[in-house]
Amino acid sequence: VRIAVLGVGLIGGSIGLAARDRLGATVSGFDPDAENLERAVRIGALDHAAGSAAEALEGVEAVFCAAPVRALGDLVRGALADTGAGCVVSDVGSTKRELSASLAGHPGAGRFIGGHPIAGAETAGVEHARADLFEGARWYLTPNEQSEGTLYHALQSTIAGLGARPQAIDADSHDRLMATVSHLPHVIANVLVGQAAAASTEESEGLPEVGPSFRDTTRVAGANPAIWTDIFSSNGDAVAAEIDAAVERLQQASRLIRSGDRAAVAEWHRAARDSRSALLDAGGGEGPLNEIRVGIENRPGTVAEIALALGRARVNIEDMALYPATEARTGAVTFWVSGNSESQRAAELVRGLGHTATIIGPGAQ
Amino acid sequence: VRIAVLGVGLIGGSIGLAARDRLGATVSGFDPDAENLERAVRIGALDHAAGSAAEALEGVEAVFCAAPVRALGDLVRGALADTGAGCVVSDVGSTKRELSASLAGHPGAGRFIGGHPIAGAETAGVEHARADLFEGARWYLTPNEQSEGTLYHALQSTIAGLGARPQAIDADSHDRLMATVSHLPHVIANVLVGQAAAASTEESEGLPEVGPSFRDTTRVAGANPAIWTDIFSSNGDAVAAEIDAAVERLQQASRLIRSGDRAAVAEWHRAARDSRSALLDAGGGEGPLNEIRVGIENRPGTVAEIALALGRARVNIEDMALYPATEARTGAVTFWVSGNSESQRAAELVRGLGHTATIIGPGAQ
Repeated sequence: VRIAVLGVGLIGGSIGLAARDRLGATVSGFDPDAENLERAVRIGALDHAAGSAAEALEGVEAVFCAAPVRALGDLVRGALADTGAGCVVSDVGSTKRELSASLAGHPGAGRFIGGHPIAGAETAGVEHARADLFEGARWYLTPNEQSEGTLYHALQSTIAGLGARPQAIDADSHDRLMATVSHLPHVIANVLVGQAAAASTEESEGLPEVGPSFRDTTRVAGANPAIWTDIFSSNGDAVAAEIDAAVERLQQASRLIRSGDRAAVAEWHRAARDSRSALLDAGGGEGPLNEIRVGIENRPGTVAEIALALGRARVNIEDMALYPATEARTGAVTFWVSGNSESQRAAELVRGLGHTATIIGPGAQ
Repeated sequence: VRIAVLGVGLIGGSIGLAARDRLGATVSGFDPDAENLERAVRIGALDHAAGSAAEALEGVEAVFCAAPVRALGDLVRGALADTGAGCVVSDVGSTKRELSASLAGHPGAGRFIGGHPIAGAETAGVEHARADLFEGARWYLTPNEQSEGTLYHALQSTIAGLGARPQAIDADSHDRLMATVSHLPHVIANVLVGQAAAASTEESEGLPEVGPSFRDTTRVAGANPAIWTDIFSSNGDAVAAEIDAAVERLQQASRLIRSGDRAAVAEWHRAARDSRSALLDAGGGEGPLNEIRVGIENRPGTVAEIALALGRARVNIEDMALYPATEARTGAVTFWVSGNSESQRAAELVRGLGHTATIIGPGAQ
């Protein structure tokens, strides 16, 4: 398999390392920063350092655009122009709606499937790249109704091959989800350190001493300003909406605490404990592996639709296969899912979309 | 030295272990829970398990009340009644104003000096007690104008002997400081998990998967409901005020992010980074040790006043000594302070309070 990486920083470099190491892929790459490109070759992330993006793209089956969010639009459009049918183009940007919307109706948009690996957000630079950066990491994919099934399958397999756990999600939901579980915590960390630093001038000379709870809660404060300015810009409305919701919850907490109602405070605190352990338990696919065979019509969007339905249901697709080739009118797609009840839930969901679904394995009803 | 511990949970048990281990103290203890008391003896935290608080207090020089915040008022009043001149009574509660106010004018209040070790907030139970729990930990002391200097000195020395770093702070400032650097982060962690858990019902089935930034930011969510209900009750107004301030900062952040002003967002984010590293650097006493000799009038409150002034200036008192005995009209107190400029700052502060101060050591002007 031949892969191209456009932009070889931490993520691009790690894709190159993992693809060569785990998939035996041949990886070509380009980066406008010549020093970065040279370093990527030196650490073994690339087989070939190209003189241009177009040169890097010659003969490849998959392209990963790994540039800052603001540069992705032009980079993806260029990659679609320089590649042809059978080549999937993806990216690794932290927000997905803006880019996805900007490509609507663009020639070849059915070959673009956005991506976002949840890894390495806080360090940057190809010098930190490593082949196991994506080991066990969630990697969101944002296909839509234009997405070609065979290319979705190819991308999902490649990403699973890098060691990650791909999951489909629509671009809007992705950005709202990230606003809740990632962008808001970053905003709040910034606010907490600002408030603590300001407290120093009122109470006493010098800064207050902080303890372990403060250190943890604010670990991500001010992380990687270049990346985060992009994130706050490209997902501004969703982040602002989450902040507004947090403000409302904080105002409730303030009223609750002022009320002095011990039982209600204890209940609120206990609920937080329960919610946190439930959240930390979420997303771990466990149990026996089942195969789910699904009959589909072979038209764009069907595979993406199924993958999105399973993603929405938080069903973890461990692996998938697609038959037969692209030209047949009907076909089949097989998913491997962990856990018997998870597999039965997945089959029900697929049937709900109007397809046939058969479970093969210990979860067969 | 003979010490009593009333309440032998994580903190009380660890005080017993550290006092026996590091100070060679004889430690007696009482706990209304007979099983706790027995366990404390078994792990070596106590020399003597008493049948009552009064029995535990016989002949001791220092008492640590280590019960839940709500029970401390009665416990401290009882300990003051059952001990006499020369015995210092302290506590380890997470909030200090309420208790301090409730003791104003109480007989023997000059022998009570509140305390709060910053250690072990998230685990509980004597089974987790250890002799090194306080190693390097900040231990706030909240003397006031009634506090007897010799007893402050004895308590500061005992606590330093347990391995902790004592620092004087007035009770009001302590509670506001804790509201900022500890209680608010806990409230915010609760709010974040509540919001993420609620998101699940809107976007998709099941709970959203969370990443490392969410895990860190919410680590303290719902920690130890019994302790935290007490904290939120006894420091409710300060915590609510901090929440209100955080709400204002979040509303500013929401407006900033909605404005789309990239430069301003980047600046805000960078400021957070700088504030955090400044906060994490705060509180570390370093540099050569100096001795500061201070002439004082021997009346209640003087030593506390000096300790509070140094605490407010974030000067770390490594050790202190007090001469002569309590009955003389004038006396001297010696502080050891790390760092030449710190020592000079400390000497200036002491002179500002109307005392003579001489530095002996490399920081002598």
